[in-house]
Amino acid sequence: MSLPIQKHLDDFRARKTDLFRKDFLITWEHPRQEIEAILSLASVLKGLHQEGISYRVFETGLAISIFRDNSTRTRFSFASAANALGLGLADLDEEKSQIAHGETVRETANMISFLAEVIGIRDDMFLGEGNRYMREVGAALTEGAGAGVLHRRPSVINLQCDVDHPTQALADLAWLKEHFGGLERLEGKKLAMTWAYSPSYGKPLSVPQGVIGLMTRFGMDVTLAHPEGYGLVPEVLEVARENAAQGGGSFQVATSMEEAFRGADVVYPKSWAPYHVMQRRTQLLQEGDRPGLAALEKECLASNARFVDWQCDRAKMDLTRDRKALYMHCLPADISGVSCERGEVSAEVFEQYRIPTYRQAGYKPFVISALMFLTRVKDPAARIASLVERSK
Amino acid sequence: MSLPIQKHLDDFRARKTDLFRKDFLITWEHPRQEIEAILSLASVLKGLHQEGISYRVFETGLAISIFRDNSTRTRFSFASAANALGLGLADLDEEKSQIAHGETVRETANMISFLAEVIGIRDDMFLGEGNRYMREVGAALTEGAGAGVLHRRPSVINLQCDVDHPTQALADLAWLKEHFGGLERLEGKKLAMTWAYSPSYGKPLSVPQGVIGLMTRFGMDVTLAHPEGYGLVPEVLEVARENAAQGGGSFQVATSMEEAFRGADVVYPKSWAPYHVMQRRTQLLQEGDRPGLAALEKECLASNARFVDWQCDRAKMDLTRDRKALYMHCLPADISGVSCERGEVSAEVFEQYRIPTYRQAGYKPFVISALMFLTRVKDPAARIASLVERSK
Amino acid sequence: MSLPIQKHLDDFRARKTDLFRKDFLITWEHPRQEIEAILSLASVLKGLHQEGISYRVFETGLAISIFRDNSTRTRFSFASAANALGLGLADLDEEKSQIAHGETVRETANMISFLAEVIGIRDDMFLGEGNRYMREVGAALTEGAGAGVLHRRPSVINLQCDVDHPTQALADLAWLKEHFGGLERLEGKKLAMTWAYSPSYGKPLSVPQGVIGLMTRFGMDVTLAHPEGYGLVPEVLEVARENAAQGGGSFQVATSMEEAFRGADVVYPKSWAPYHVMQRRTQLLQEGDRPGLAALEKECLASNARFVDWQCDRAKMDLTRDRKALYMHCLPADISGVSCERGEVSAEVFEQYRIPTYRQAGYKPFVISALMFLTRVKDPAARIASLVERSK
Repeated sequence: MSLPIQKHLDDFRARKTDLFRKDFLITWEHPRQEIEAILSLASVLKGLHQEGISYRVFETGLAISIFRDNSTRTRFSFASAANALGLGLADLDEEKSQIAHGETVRETANMISFLAEVIGIRDDMFLGEGNRYMREVGAALTEGAGAGVLHRRPSVINLQCDVDHPTQALADLAWLKEHFGGLERLEGKKLAMTWAYSPSYGKPLSVPQGVIGLMTRFGMDVTLAHPEGYGLVPEVLEVARENAAQGGGSFQVATSMEEAFRGADVVYPKSWAPYHVMQRRTQLLQEGDRPGLAALEKECLASNARFVDWQCDRAKMDLTRDRKALYMHCLPADISGVSCERGEVSAEVFEQYRIPTYRQAGYKPFVISALMFLTRVKDPAARIASLVERSK
Repeated sequence: MSLPIQKHLDDFRARKTDLFRKDFLITWEHPRQEIEAILSLASVLKGLHQEGISYRVFETGLAISIFRDNSTRTRFSFASAANALGLGLADLDEEKSQIAHGETVRETANMISFLAEVIGIRDDMFLGEGNRYMREVGAALTEGAGAGVLHRRPSVINLQCDVDHPTQALADLAWLKEHFGGLERLEGKKLAMTWAYSPSYGKPLSVPQGVIGLMTRFGMDVTLAHPEGYGLVPEVLEVARENAAQGGGSFQVATSMEEAFRGADVVYPKSWAPYHVMQRRTQLLQEGDRPGLAALEKECLASNARFVDWQCDRAKMDLTRDRKALYMHCLPADISGVSCERGEVSAEVFEQYRIPTYRQAGYKPFVISALMFLTRVKDPAARIASLVERSK
Repeated sequence: MSLPIQKHLDDFRARKTDLFRKDFLITWEHPRQEIEAILSLASVLKGLHQEGISYRVFETGLAISIFRDNSTRTRFSFASAANALGLGLADLDEEKSQIAHGETVRETANMISFLAEVIGIRDDMFLGEGNRYMREVGAALTEGAGAGVLHRRPSVINLQCDVDHPTQALADLAWLKEHFGGLERLEGKKLAMTWAYSPSYGKPLSVPQGVIGLMTRFGMDVTLAHPEGYGLVPEVLEVARENAAQGGGSFQVATSMEEAFRGADVVYPKSWAPYHVMQRRTQLLQEGDRPGLAALEKECLASNARFVDWQCDRAKMDLTRDRKALYMHCLPADISGVSCERGEVSAEVFEQYRIPTYRQAGYKPFVISALMFLTRVKDPAARIASLVERSK
């Protein structure tokens, strides 16, 4: 084990976690030292992978994924993490299953879990639904385990819901930690989480919500910016305000990209659909109202079109601290002239930061690995030590 | 290894099996002691899982699944069982393959099997087809292995066909064994396998057929009940009669749910499509006659509607022995007021037995594990002993 | 380890390879001794499997497959090979991913590869596209690994492109080696790679191209035959001519099946779409011109219909050396009276050679295993020795 890994492992050991056999749904439901422990462990696992040391801890067991929305990177991050721990992947493809035919959530949750260790769920389409669904699955598992249906209760891991996208936000934080050289160096740094123009509509709110809910806890000065009417879920704004108050940072809302970028150390320009639109969309989707959805889309795209200048370009980057803020994106970005005519970011700025966004994304499989490790392995630090020993 | 597991293992050792490198297609093609051995081994494996002892026996190898009908629980049971033994899962998705483009069954059977250990097949849509298809696959594998195409002949496991649903029936029997405290306690117990109303149509016959074909062998008094015209495949009725005669139990057919429930120790109310309808449906499906299928569905639903009172409710449960027969279902059930307006079972009765039906289902992954173990491991008892030894 | 395996291993050891951490895209980009080493190693791995000795070398890691066309045998060969080495399979299903939504190839290549060891790609639909796409993926991986995005650069393996189908051609060569008792015995043998009639259209050119590009290197007298206007990609014809000149064999093009079959030791009758048609088809597909595609298909089928006598039947087989040339096919074949009214081969000839074609196909999982082994294991011969040692 190299020195950097040893350092991350020491950092991990110094923090208390209480995640064994639990679920992981929302970052702000977990104490700060648990978040720190996750990041340290993720770095340990990333380092082991880099050195070719396997961190497989399961001989058998299933990791089940339920994706209620398309996904490439989260799907592969979850698959990679499961495989790295020794778990087999089983995807619950609701088209292939009988879920549409009247099965209740609690029944299905038990039926798929007899030999499962973790269940990763992405459900971000409907406001007020995804997170609730995850808790419903969790409650069913608790009931099943208590009643002797399941010999072990699997852990539910949120792979993106309507409220938070914790594995993304944690990967983002891990990348910030690496980039600035430690979590303590984030204090006082300004992060601009801003809306950006996109020719599409209906992008989920959970990425910006996850970012403002998490980064405010680490002393950052977080500015959320968006055009009028493009607000996030009010409860999460409240969380961000409280976190900032407790974490020693600040949280404010601005109405121009320029204002947010001014003096920023980090910018995260990203499109999303307004909260109130998502509410209407949720209702229309639930009612299966196709003409209504088409009308809403048309209205929203027309609304978006008023804000095409909400694009991260060189002129805006020049407003940031020393003109060289770190640009972040969860990918894929809408890149002007590349993936669309006009989008979230200019081709030139994106190309400058392309590799850094890849490295940002590179933390996700290890963050998910760490969450699986912490929720399923009883004494993680001792286990890491024995893994390293075994590899010799 | 705990005492209960030891007891199941002793029971297993006391029985002779001849399943190595064979297929498992129909329960009544196997001697009673082989069935008993499967149940004992399933309980051993379930116990090992409960105690956290891996029963992985393969380092590599594929378990191939072919699902010609939707499935959640059988799919996950098969995936779980394969994973628990150390096999990788590969699903032959006929949409993704070239099967539709003129490949013969025997060719495909060989092409997918070069490194396969087991092939699980669900094919229950067409009367007279599913079981025949499985035997065709088996014959092709035998030819391929004999001709040096395959270095090892994989075992075919029936995951539901038009005749039997052996992994379901075996899981049901394992649950009855647990519930009543032993197979010998099933003697003289009355089991009511009855048709029940459902607002859908075309449900396969293999569940009731599997139940009457298996439970009659263990001294149970099995009563099959259904409205006139809702009969099962005649050959299987004959099997049930013979099994009852040899097994010391009885088999009769009743025409009312009440009659079947009266004094029953176990009730299994479950919808299915009449045999003669499935015959017509098979023909229409093969001819691709959509208007004919629509007309048949309409006719059948109208016919079903005459029997909405074939619902398992409190009044009918009160007819059973001491008013507390065990309710069973293969899930998902059509629950009145929950998954449909009016269905197979009242919400109140289902809720009372919900957890027991989950526990019933919980045997399936271990029954499939046991079938894989017995068909692929040369000396299963010795192997279990060495697994336990290894875990220390 | 049995004597035959030992012999193949000695043959392998005698040859130098430089494949570690490289891609494998086109057979003629690799020196002859590397091709020979691949075949020897494939036979070693096939022998180990036959003797029940695992050649698993990975504890964890992903093998990613990207299939841009339907596939049964290549899909299962890749899955089998990955599993045999201990890799988990993850399929990038472009319908399930966000690739269609503007992701660039280089981004996706990195996003899926954080814990990947190999990426197998089948992309044979568009002339001039598939192979280029694979190289684009490879370049992105090289960039990602160089920039610290990926800790290890996975190897890209061509599972069929518009130019070559290397795993098929290598399996074909391995089968010829077995059939004739050694690669050196192929010298001077006549192989007839001929077009054959099929009632379908649009079959890729990569199988015949792969065969003429590879077999010409081993001293075979290769005759390519097709009706006028059914030519292959000109660059590959040039490769075949050069290979023949260097390999001591010959390469000629004939315009009748009879001429090609006369005196042949091996015949490989197989349908394909003409090069110039594939060019037009590629353009129409890219333009999404459905009426144009329908018109082209009609025109091609009419053209094909003029050549229904290009069928491999007994009369043509009687023209071959001693009337008993080896018939080869990559499967599935269009068999007259079996899978179609009139096709590539008569039912009688196919039935005679059916099992040999299965054995031909049986080399593919081991060829792919060998490619994975060589591209990912540093000292393959030593590793084989230690695997055999471990199995004792």
